[in-house]
Amino acid sequence: MTLERPFDFLNGAMNKTVLVRMKDERELRGTLRAFDVHMNIVMDDTEELENDKVLKKIGSVLLRGDNIVFISP
Amino acid sequence: MTLERPFDFLNGAMNKTVLVRMKDERELRGTLRAFDVHMNIVMDDTEELENDKVLKKIGSVLLRGDNIVFISP
Amino acid sequence: MTLERPFDFLNGAMNKTVLVRMKDERELRGTLRAFDVHMNIVMDDTEELENDKVLKKIGSVLLRGDNIVFISP
Amino acid sequence: MTLERPFDFLNGAMNKTVLVRMKDERELRGTLRAFDVHMNIVMDDTEELENDKVLKKIGSVLLRGDNIVFISP
Amino acid sequence: MTLERPFDFLNGAMNKTVLVRMKDERELRGTLRAFDVHMNIVMDDTEELENDKVLKKIGSVLLRGDNIVFISP
Amino acid sequence: MTLERPFDFLNGAMNKTVLVRMKDERELRGTLRAFDVHMNIVMDDTEELENDKVLKKIGSVLLRGDNIVFISP
Amino acid sequence: MTLERPFDFLNGAMNKTVLVRMKDERELRGTLRAFDVHMNIVMDDTEELENDKVLKKIGSVLLRGDNIVFISP
Repeated sequence: MTLERPFDFLNGAMNKTVLVRMKDERELRGTLRAFDVHMNIVMDDTEELENDKVLKKIGSVLLRGDNIVFISP
Repeated sequence: MTLERPFDFLNGAMNKTVLVRMKDERELRGTLRAFDVHMNIVMDDTEELENDKVLKKIGSVLLRGDNIVFISP
Repeated sequence: MTLERPFDFLNGAMNKTVLVRMKDERELRGTLRAFDVHMNIVMDDTEELENDKVLKKIGSVLLRGDNIVFISP
Repeated sequence: MTLERPFDFLNGAMNKTVLVRMKDERELRGTLRAFDVHMNIVMDDTEELENDKVLKKIGSVLLRGDNIVFISP
Repeated sequence: MTLERPFDFLNGAMNKTVLVRMKDERELRGTLRAFDVHMNIVMDDTEELENDKVLKKIGSVLLRGDNIVFISP
Repeated sequence: MTLERPFDFLNGAMNKTVLVRMKDERELRGTLRAFDVHMNIVMDDTEELENDKVLKKIGSVLLRGDNIVFISP
Repeated sequence: MTLERPFDFLNGAMNKTVLVRMKDERELRGTLRAFDVHMNIVMDDTEELENDKVLKKIGSVLLRGDNIVFISP
């Protein structure tokens, strides 16, 4: 992967499935639809996971960036 | 859903019911009436939920954005 | 309720009784007298509540905005 | 009380005794001598209280604003 | 090592393996691909470690800078 | 004491012994040598205290301002 | 020691051994090589200490400033 800046990573992940590790240890997995400089992101078809198991289907979400540990494709 | 930026998500949710996951694990469900760039939001007919059960009806609220994990329609 | 921005909510609540949910789970109830863009607020005739019971009467207060979860009329 | 902005509250409290509720649940009571826009304040003749009892006399203090929950006359 | 500013350290570590200590005590080890002034970083071939043992392989990640304690080559 | 702004308090305390209450409940006592607008301070001959007892002598320190509750002469 | 501002302290400590107390109570000891206005620092030959005992040798590190309580020579 070649990229200039971390946010290029999010451009490359648009409309693909990403996994978001949250500060409360849970994870959200969904299709990335939008992001901004605060790392606020919008995902569709989002599921909430704990220990790799689906806890709940939550559909579309706007996730506030300050809750994020990392985002992985 | 096509949108340019995360806050377009909130524009699309105006005057509709949204669910707000809070950092203290509780949830607020109400009708979105206003928001700003800090993700401060105003909702009407708001209920406070815990584990999907209604704890309390709290009517109109101004919710401070830094308490939010995610907002979902 | 129609409003353009969240802080219009506070303009509409001036000189009326509001309930403030705090991050430490307590609540303050008083008459809203002033606010600023940081959500710092001044209330008169303020009572501190826990589980809907009055703990203490504390009169006038300047409340620092970063302690607030939500404000409700 | 009529005031335009929350910090007018502090102007009105200058050289009077104020009670400061802290985020660690303790309280400081002293004579307000100075404040700034970060809500940093200077008090003289300050006492530290816990559950309304005086724990310690600490004289003059510069208190960093981000520790404050509320200030009350 | 001679460098003018801390971020020169990251320039020198580009495309090399780095270990990232996180505020939740875990560690991520991967190949540094990008960073910005907020210390947001992108790594490839990332592994999550606890007590020096590999917990999970997580591939490419965008790690939010405010979770970082330190980065070490 | 008459002063215009909280930081005048620190000007008046230069080269004198001050006690710094920290957010982790410990205290540092030393001779104030420098400060800035973030309340970062430098002290010489610093001792670390817990419950008014000296835990450790730590000499000169640069203390990061966001750890401070209050500073007292 | 005479200095104008806290960061002069770090200029004086360049290429010398410093001890860094962290918010998680651990300490890092190493040779200071670089710093910036956020108090991000780079150290070489760094050791991690707990209760004055060496836990681990970690070599060169870029330490994020918001983890720091104090820095001492």
